[in-house]
Amino acid sequence: MSMAALSGTHLLQNPDHRINNFATHSHHSLVTSIRPTGPTSVRPISIKCAAVPTTTQTNDRPQAQTSSPDRVFNFAPGPATLPETVLKKAESELYVWRDSGMSVMEMSHRGKDFLSIIQKAESDLRTLLDIPEEYHVLFLQGGATTQFAALPLNLCKPEDQVDYVVTGSWGDKAFKEAQKFCTPNVIWSGKSEKYTKIPSFSELDQLQNPHARYLHICSNETIHGVEFKDYPTPKNPNGVLIADMSSNFCSKPVDVSRFGVIYAGAQKNVGPSGVTIVIIRKDLIGNAQDITPVMLDYKIQAENNSLYNTPPCYAIYMCGLVFEDLLEQGGLKEVEKKNKKKAEILYNAIEESNGFYRCPVEKSVRSLMNVPFTLEKSELEGEFIKEAAKEKMVQLKGHRSVGGMRASIYNAMSLAGVEKLVAFMKDFQSRHA
Amino acid sequence: MSMAALSGTHLLQNPDHRINNFATHSHHSLVTSIRPTGPTSVRPISIKCAAVPTTTQTNDRPQAQTSSPDRVFNFAPGPATLPETVLKKAESELYVWRDSGMSVMEMSHRGKDFLSIIQKAESDLRTLLDIPEEYHVLFLQGGATTQFAALPLNLCKPEDQVDYVVTGSWGDKAFKEAQKFCTPNVIWSGKSEKYTKIPSFSELDQLQNPHARYLHICSNETIHGVEFKDYPTPKNPNGVLIADMSSNFCSKPVDVSRFGVIYAGAQKNVGPSGVTIVIIRKDLIGNAQDITPVMLDYKIQAENNSLYNTPPCYAIYMCGLVFEDLLEQGGLKEVEKKNKKKAEILYNAIEESNGFYRCPVEKSVRSLMNVPFTLEKSELEGEFIKEAAKEKMVQLKGHRSVGGMRASIYNAMSLAGVEKLVAFMKDFQSRHA
Repeated sequence: MSMAALSGTHLLQNPDHRINNFATHSHHSLVTSIRPTGPTSVRPISIKCAAVPTTTQTNDRPQAQTSSPDRVFNFAPGPATLPETVLKKAESELYVWRDSGMSVMEMSHRGKDFLSIIQKAESDLRTLLDIPEEYHVLFLQGGATTQFAALPLNLCKPEDQVDYVVTGSWGDKAFKEAQKFCTPNVIWSGKSEKYTKIPSFSELDQLQNPHARYLHICSNETIHGVEFKDYPTPKNPNGVLIADMSSNFCSKPVDVSRFGVIYAGAQKNVGPSGVTIVIIRKDLIGNAQDITPVMLDYKIQAENNSLYNTPPCYAIYMCGLVFEDLLEQGGLKEVEKKNKKKAEILYNAIEESNGFYRCPVEKSVRSLMNVPFTLEKSELEGEFIKEAAKEKMVQLKGHRSVGGMRASIYNAMSLAGVEKLVAFMKDFQSRHA
Repeated sequence: MSMAALSGTHLLQNPDHRINNFATHSHHSLVTSIRPTGPTSVRPISIKCAAVPTTTQTNDRPQAQTSSPDRVFNFAPGPATLPETVLKKAESELYVWRDSGMSVMEMSHRGKDFLSIIQKAESDLRTLLDIPEEYHVLFLQGGATTQFAALPLNLCKPEDQVDYVVTGSWGDKAFKEAQKFCTPNVIWSGKSEKYTKIPSFSELDQLQNPHARYLHICSNETIHGVEFKDYPTPKNPNGVLIADMSSNFCSKPVDVSRFGVIYAGAQKNVGPSGVTIVIIRKDLIGNAQDITPVMLDYKIQAENNSLYNTPPCYAIYMCGLVFEDLLEQGGLKEVEKKNKKKAEILYNAIEESNGFYRCPVEKSVRSLMNVPFTLEKSELEGEFIKEAAKEKMVQLKGHRSVGGMRASIYNAMSLAGVEKLVAFMKDFQSRHA
């Protein structure tokens, strides 16, 4: 999602930062061996990094390299790194998909081949999230930002009141867009505390409007790194909970039955940009306002199985490959374990730095996906980002509205990548403390 | 676009229809040699086809094969066949793009690399269509169907009158959507003549509302195969001409300065589905209705260079590769020559069939992109489609609302593909006349 992706160090475009130049960083002074982390073979390369001894304190041996010497560790907030196995699969069948005689990008969206692709993607997603039968799964366009309008247009009359909990920039954007189509109220905002907290549910119970048509939350704020660990219940017995899950979608199991609508742009955890997934309870569709553009009408999209017009076929295909990969990993419980492990070693490195690194987010709501942190010596942040890029760890600059650094460690970021970052952080601290 | 793509024979999934089974079609009885049409090498394969002697009547030797034995000739109306050179380029850099260390699908849309991709795509498109400086070029989502709403929302007040010329199903859909947001009038419809004609401009002059905010046309109706060969002028001196060019975009030069807005889904001539290109005169933006979803607001999109939120990055990248390919072909004048040649031999084959094949469209407005035709003996249409698929020519079934056959021969359909279709048609006629 856009504001979440404003970060961007681009040092990597400078050939000086490619792996064959590592030996030039003479302040690093230890050689580690390489283990491929993916399916592709890689010729051993030695990397100098004084940080390796510290990382041996963690349970896993460090993997100092991506599976391909041409690849970097990409900590971007989205679009974000994708599983290398998925990219290799896509590469292998880009020109001709199976026995279709054509690329997925050339297939009629009404044809047997693409229908098998989109139906398999939906089926696998239903398995991953254990989505009940009474929910539609839609593959739409326009990002979560389009859903900010579609939700009130489909679920509300202009006079209907709805509640928004604003725990970050995305919740705020969702609220502002809703003002065009219904009567939304911000019942809680973390803005005065720089979006570092999430309210207690008992506090929310006091604040909720008992007549609110829905209660809207952003389950993980990409920019600020605050994440709901559980979900509030609407005070209105006829109201529903709606969550923008763009940046933690499919990062852990979720009880879908607690929500009226879950929506997510794909470009963080489940695919490339260009497709937005909407999971909506079937009884909530069919009452769109007259001014609803047909493409934003959930009833039209559901009746046409997301094929009212030509969908973003290739992006849906890529999501399908990611869903297959998540199932092969053992499903979302296993994925959550990996994500917790990655986040744990990174937050621990921050906590154990004696204040050299700092995370502003209240501990109980720190995101497993987006880890913002600052340096006590803020004047070193530029150097930190520059040196990290030289070590092939890119997109670590924090959002301009927050500053500092941010490591986005979505499903596809390997433990090896996080271990390498932690090793680098400890090494950097040892040299600048 | 969706209704345009309802066709779909899926015989190809049956292994019986793959090339190594051609020899089994014993009613064919002549061997032709293979010439690669693309960059990839191919081992010579002999194909039996009695039609070859007839095709030697055309000026070009037939190329009976795609450049890869695994590829078919795909006559789908969209998503449609893409240039094989473009697919090979995309395949070669899918896993790692240049020295970025990542796939285009993983790049931050705010990063230097993707910005270079989208800016190059816009620059090349401006060169191809000679787009004046006073026009914005936007890369949006949601297909032309989303623009059906965005146009009146951005250009009109609810009471504003606008004129629609309905020459097919897409013009009709655009009109129906506009009814939600302004006061549109259908000033001419070809429905009673099954959308086989386009009105004379003198007739349109009589029909236009002198107060119409805009005059809307669909420059090429994908389903019916009728194409504007020139463009009408709005009667209102303050009005503008708007064209949905989805199915003939970049198939020939166009004088952009005659239009207020040109819009097109990419998935026919310039890329995969998932991105829609809008070319709009700068003075037309900035007056969107209050109920306009932010993603449909041209001013927001223009001010943010199509990056208000995360765009469909990979689809934009693919369009950029296609634009480069079109420039390498010599630009749209050269592309138009090729398209005219392809259409000429196909329409000639229909005309010279003594009524065995029939095209319902009035000759002066026959589309260079979508060629619908029927068989005098309609009971043979199923057999025609089945045999064509066995010859690796797929997606020839006409739209359900029209019936018969339809050959979509967009930019990326090679002359070899059309020649093979013509050869097959003559052979089929010789066996069933």
